[in-house]
Parts: sequence; structure tokens; C-alpha cells
Amino acid sequence: MAASSSLDELIEALRCLPGVGPKSAQRMAYHLLQRDRRGAERLAQSLSGALERLRHCARCNNFSEDEVCSRCLSSRRDVTQLCVVEMPIDLNSMEQTHAFQGLYYVLMGRLSPLDGIGPRELAFERLLNRATDGLVKEVILATNFTNEGEATAHYLSELLSARGLKVSRMARGLPVGGELEFSDAITVAQAFIERRDYS
Amino acid sequence: MAASSSLDELIEALRCLPGVGPKSAQRMAYHLLQRDRRGAERLAQSLSGALERLRHCARCNNFSEDEVCSRCLSSRRDVTQLCVVEMPIDLNSMEQTHAFQGLYYVLMGRLSPLDGIGPRELAFERLLNRATDGLVKEVILATNFTNEGEATAHYLSELLSARGLKVSRMARGLPVGGELEFSDAITVAQAFIERRDYS
Repeated sequence: MAASSSLDELIEALRCLPGVGPKSAQRMAYHLLQRDRRGAERLAQSLSGALERLRHCARCNNFSEDEVCSRCLSSRRDVTQLCVVEMPIDLNSMEQTHAFQGLYYVLMGRLSPLDGIGPRELAFERLLNRATDGLVKEVILATNFTNEGEATAHYLSELLSARGLKVSRMARGLPVGGELEFSDAITVAQAFIERRDYS
Repeated sequence: MAASSSLDELIEALRCLPGVGPKSAQRMAYHLLQRDRRGAERLAQSLSGALERLRHCARCNNFSEDEVCSRCLSSRRDVTQLCVVEMPIDLNSMEQTHAFQGLYYVLMGRLSPLDGIGPRELAFERLLNRATDGLVKEVILATNFTNEGEATAHYLSELLSARGLKVSRMARGLPVGGELEFSDAITVAQAFIERRDYS
């Protein structure tokens, strides 16, 4: 009396997506089968294609179809600045600002001892090799301002400073357009502590 | 300087999932590629498998790998009662109660003129053929108590009554364990209007 097994398999397989529980997985499966079979076909093919073709860029560790990605090969980027981010999505956020012309290193995660993710899992050794290529002068730590992102930045800053590199961190403070009234107390406090000369 | 194209394709393909926007699609793609490649492989295979093998049961319209699903073929079900639900997930909810022993018909949707879903899109003709097989005595309308579900039930009740079938509707009222204080006014009002003799 059980439902058909390929349906059960699909529902179970959809649960590997982050944030998708049993109910959402069911809803997704029914939607795909009933309303968007072409989308489902395309998804199956893109998944297989991506798994087959994508690897990590040997220089920035971001996903890439080539040994070294086009951004790392570009002659227009400033090779003296290396920006360290947690995930590719963070790299995209930086790129959208058009404020940074240097190169990146993507950690593909953050230190998270509770999840068993330590310096070895994030391959900090590779980042150190990358940062000490003789061209990089400044490493900008752009991990998130969460507890784990801050811990990662702190850990990396010690490793990198010890190798004579200039290490900087993204500024903390009130967001542009932000109002004190609607900001949380810790952000306001931090913005006060890290206040800068008005010039 | 664009990201690799199989990655872009995967992100775009993930957006066919209901409730998944550009940011979630990115997060899902990175998660699959970085943390769960086996899950991703399994998902690709289950999608292809389900698309290939699943069709609609000729009797209840639910997803099935066979011409007629095992539930419709079962000799233990009461063939005189036919319960009409919107989606397979609703059928599962009914089955979990163990209160209903009859058979089902799954509409695979609800009337929704704004989305262009009318009686023809839901193939009401098939339901009418199913309900007038000579064995069904009572049709229980178990579409949801949303505006669209109510409209669907109303429309179907007229079609089915005209063919001499007994048509019933799931009861509305306060949920089991529900308290007046915490229920919305419309539910309380409806529970009052549809009050029943205390016997």
C-alpha cells in the first residue's frame, strides 16, 4: 500500500538540499512531476554536468571548470591584494561592489569545531602557500561577522601576520542608511568603540 | 570574468523548485558541490528515474509506476466511498488517520482561475467517470478549506449531486484540543453556525 518507490526515492533524495525537510521535499517532488517536468529534466542534467565538470581553482579554491579560473588568470586584477572569503556567494557580494580589484581566496567554509571543521578541513596550508607567493602584500579578511567567521578571521590573522604579511579586516559598524534607533545594541556599541576621526 | 557556466546552469536549474529564489539556489548549489556530492548524484539519478517511471494511476490519478496503483487494486478497501483530495500529500494526511477505508481520487490541483486552472485542466470529466462506475455511493470532498479549495468543492458537489451521488464534505470547526481564546473569529463563528446536537 506504500507509494511508488521512485517517488519515495526522489522525495528522500531532495532532502539532501539544505533547509529542505520531509514536507518541503514532498511538495517539491509533486511540483516537479506535475507542473515542471522540463525543469526537472534540466535539473537532473545540470546536476550531473556540474558534478562532472566542476573542480576547485588551484589558486583561489573557488569552483572552476579549469585548472585555474579566469579571474585568477586575468591581467587586470591587482595581485598584491588577496581577499579571503568564506563562500563563493561572499565573493559575488564583493564583486558586485566593484570596489575591490585584487584577487580572492575562497575558504569554502569557516572554522566550526562543533561541526568538526578545523584548520585542516579548510586546508589553511593552501591559503598560506597562496598568500606567500611573493606578490601578495595585503590579505583582507572578509569572513562574516558571525562568531565562527570572527574566530576564523582571528585564527588566520595570527598565521598570516607571523609570515610578515599585512592583514586587514572588513570594517564593522552601522550599515549605510542605518539608523541608531533601529540597530541592535551590539552593533551600535561596536560602531562607537571603533569610531574613526572625522576628517 | 563570469563564474563557470556549469555552475550557473545548475543554479538556474535549481530555481525550478518551488519557493527557491536566486540566493537559495546559490546556497543549494554550493552545498551540493562542496558538502554533499553523493547526495547530488543520487538526486540527479532519482529525478531521471522518477521522470521515466512515474505516471498517473488510471483510477485515482495519483502518481504510480503501474497502470493502476496498488491501493486501487486492493481488495481491502471500501469501493463505495470515494474521497477527493487536491494533492498526494493530502491523501497521505488522510491515510495517516487510519479513519478512512475507501478509495481516493487525486485532483492534482484546485480550481484557480487566476492561474488559468479550470475544470478542464483538472480533468473533472475523469473524476465524474470514476465516480459513476456504479460502485461508488458516496463522494467525500476533502479539498482544503482555503478559498480555492472551497470553490473546488462547491463546483464538484453540483456536478456530482446532479448524477445522483451522495456528496459529503469534511467537517469544519475547532481543531481537537483547540481553545476558543486562541482560535480566529471566523473559525469560532463557523463552529457555532455548524454546531451539532450533543448526543
